[in-house]
Amino acid sequence: MSATLSAQYSLTIRVEIDHRPGMLGQVATAIGHAGGTIGAVDLVDVTDAHTLRDITVDAADQDHWQGILEAIEALPSAHVVDTTDRTFLLHMGGKIEQRNKVPIATRDDLSMAYTPGVARVCSAIAADRDKAFQYTIKRNTVAVVSDGTAVLGLGDIGPEAAMPVMEGKAMLFKEFAGVDAFPICLATKDPDEIVATVRAIAPGFGGINLEDISAPRCFEIEERLKADLDIPVFHDDQHGTAIVTLAALLNATRLIGKEMVALRVVVVGLGAAGVAVTKILLEAGVEHVIGCDSRGAVHTERGDYLDGSMTPIKRWYAEHSNPERRDGGPADVVDGADLFVGLSGARVMPPEALARMNRDAMVFAMANPTPEVSPEEAARYARIVATGRSDYPNQINNVLAFPGIFRGALDVRSPQITEEMKLAAARAIAAIVAENELREDYIIPSVFNRDVAPAVASAVAEEARRAGIATAGEQIGFAAADAGRIHAI
Amino acid sequence: MSATLSAQYSLTIRVEIDHRPGMLGQVATAIGHAGGTIGAVDLVDVTDAHTLRDITVDAADQDHWQGILEAIEALPSAHVVDTTDRTFLLHMGGKIEQRNKVPIATRDDLSMAYTPGVARVCSAIAADRDKAFQYTIKRNTVAVVSDGTAVLGLGDIGPEAAMPVMEGKAMLFKEFAGVDAFPICLATKDPDEIVATVRAIAPGFGGINLEDISAPRCFEIEERLKADLDIPVFHDDQHGTAIVTLAALLNATRLIGKEMVALRVVVVGLGAAGVAVTKILLEAGVEHVIGCDSRGAVHTERGDYLDGSMTPIKRWYAEHSNPERRDGGPADVVDGADLFVGLSGARVMPPEALARMNRDAMVFAMANPTPEVSPEEAARYARIVATGRSDYPNQINNVLAFPGIFRGALDVRSPQITEEMKLAAARAIAAIVAENELREDYIIPSVFNRDVAPAVASAVAEEARRAGIATAGEQIGFAAADAGRIHAI
Repeated sequence: MSATLSAQYSLTIRVEIDHRPGMLGQVATAIGHAGGTIGAVDLVDVTDAHTLRDITVDAADQDHWQGILEAIEALPSAHVVDTTDRTFLLHMGGKIEQRNKVPIATRDDLSMAYTPGVARVCSAIAADRDKAFQYTIKRNTVAVVSDGTAVLGLGDIGPEAAMPVMEGKAMLFKEFAGVDAFPICLATKDPDEIVATVRAIAPGFGGINLEDISAPRCFEIEERLKADLDIPVFHDDQHGTAIVTLAALLNATRLIGKEMVALRVVVVGLGAAGVAVTKILLEAGVEHVIGCDSRGAVHTERGDYLDGSMTPIKRWYAEHSNPERRDGGPADVVDGADLFVGLSGARVMPPEALARMNRDAMVFAMANPTPEVSPEEAARYARIVATGRSDYPNQINNVLAFPGIFRGALDVRSPQITEEMKLAAARAIAAIVAENELREDYIIPSVFNRDVAPAVASAVAEEARRAGIATAGEQIGFAAADAGRIHAI
Repeated sequence: MSATLSAQYSLTIRVEIDHRPGMLGQVATAIGHAGGTIGAVDLVDVTDAHTLRDITVDAADQDHWQGILEAIEALPSAHVVDTTDRTFLLHMGGKIEQRNKVPIATRDDLSMAYTPGVARVCSAIAADRDKAFQYTIKRNTVAVVSDGTAVLGLGDIGPEAAMPVMEGKAMLFKEFAGVDAFPICLATKDPDEIVATVRAIAPGFGGINLEDISAPRCFEIEERLKADLDIPVFHDDQHGTAIVTLAALLNATRLIGKEMVALRVVVVGLGAAGVAVTKILLEAGVEHVIGCDSRGAVHTERGDYLDGSMTPIKRWYAEHSNPERRDGGPADVVDGADLFVGLSGARVMPPEALARMNRDAMVFAMANPTPEVSPEEAARYARIVATGRSDYPNQINNVLAFPGIFRGALDVRSPQITEEMKLAAARAIAAIVAENELREDYIIPSVFNRDVAPAVASAVAEEARRAGIATAGEQIGFAAADAGRIHAI
């Protein structure tokens, strides 16, 4: 049980305890026996007879809470007064807010920030639309757009229910890269309407981060928006995952001394992430990939390819992978593979099958919360194991990529995020792990490594400049120092 | 010139001045002679020979800046090094930002605010969509939506150029009522597309403030969105102006002792504001209104009414006003009027015509920046004069209405802002001016009176409860105190 205790099931328990020596010890012991770990213990009130305390406890799930509460109630010296679910408490009223950079406290403030002074700024932008990047939030603001159809492992839960994830994403943009992001959750699943809506709201944004839109619609939506808009469009479930997976693979192959071109890869799960991971691997020099969806390995002699019922993206996949047209499920095609990439669901891979992989096998089992194969079992067969989870080594987490990528693209005002910029981001993430730090259980930096986002931003901006698509030479910091000079207006 | 000096033309001038006694006095005197008023004077650097100072000067316009700079340069003891336009400086990078309410500094933070903990909150909302008001920013967030077609007096300047106004609006929401507002500027002018876009993005918002959308499209767009959405939709150019105009009129009639029912009113300018002001006056008991558009007084025998070329909203207007079918321009139909309401353009009303109004005439000349008739001239004929400008008494400014209105509607989670809620808001604004404070030049509170928004919010919420459309009994403050209790989940 201890492996799964988590702050996500963090409960603050208000307990009235007899005011005698040793009573808090009894309560703490009871919680410990029930398997809960205690965090903060606050004193709320003291009377002659009782002390009132708030005890924060991490647990495994809601049933576990019940057991802990019953253990406390069983004590003659203690009584549970109230409980607070800390995750829900943290979400109360939402997790982000809008803030004014300057106060509007005086008539002068109002006449500069709003009417009548604002009219001069509006006129300057009307005369040169590009000045919106200078004098509005467009310069630093990304829309996090979802239709709520593929949220975490929860599936199609709708736009309102997707909001907490998109708000969380916005927080990560701000926390790691100073990007202002705003969640836009859509009351439509129709690709035409999604494209039309995002096009319509684009003028105020400097970038579009698509999120948790189900495949195969996500491919079409992203492609159309990229063609229509002059700001970066990036579907994080595809490209964020692909970039961080490649970063992990760059370091893993560096460690074990294999070449990309020689790798044999099996990708299980051909949704947004699986397709994008495959594409970036091919771009990075990998030549041998077999992809499996729920019907097994994809190839050009499979029934749904032959009868034309396969989606366009899978047809592309069939034509660019599995040249031997190997057939069967993940356990069948994993023979002789160097890398297993799981982006599907819990326990789709029998661990024993991993024994048929090549020497120095790599297993990236990224399904959340339950990986395709348990990391403990995979470790018996593979030299390197990575997951999507924070409680195992080698967490492959998009947070390593998207904040820095948009930071870099916004800084040089790139109209797009090219394939080369994505590769540059992957190399930058990988390079954070120094040669002498590289180990089987440290192929990818921690999500809290604050060096990552600036390194990614710098690499992405540099690549945009190299390709000649950077439209602003200056960083935001520099431009701000030059702000409002008459000669610049 | 002094009447038009303004912080909107505030310039910071960096001047190198000979380091001898009396030299700053020479510079200040030169600026004064050139007609500029000096604000802050900062010392930047001192050497044996020179002092370097930043002098902030309010001026009338950009030509005036030039005159001031030349006056300084004409001094042998001073030299202008650089200048900064403070209004543009303030807009650099935009005026608002997104902020995280809690930090994401640790793995526990991440597991509660984002994955995996966020999934529990998503699931709770998926099971009960209404919980989005509890656990997401929807509860306190308003979209400020514009297509940029009728921005200030600038007209159709496009969505990018409209952004500074919408950001300013968002600032006012936050500053005066703690409402988080986000600007959405649309790359379409098509009413169908605007309606579809706002519908699509609505799930994450608790209210929609439409802004600077040109008439007559604004009427249709607002009506359709009100019918489609279950959150308040409010076109501020219509209803904000109408509410504050009514508030001013309530106090003006209280002061001069006229009854609403007996008033004769001329409204000049039948765009969004003019139509909405007329409607709220009729709701408030006024019976005699004549409206003028650019072709003169509207009535049911005018050519464009008879030949069917009149827009639907003006047809409605013709049928609900001017029963005597009086013809002619503003100066013709103002005879015998008690109230002139100008919502059109600069100097459309010859001041002498006001002499034909009734005793104790009221002139609300709200065109910005140049009113329909100059307040100084109007004061020769009218007992009460109001404008839209901050540099005259009686400023009729929407800022008095919209922050408190949305605050009240969000607090009780009203699905709409009814006509009665608007009337309640107008009465609440009027009531801020106490009986013993009421004077010809003080019929409406200052935009910086911090009592206004809470009073409006309270009146609006109370009216929603009275009407039975309040869907949350609790204020946000109260709900937050109850946050995350297990029993509430």
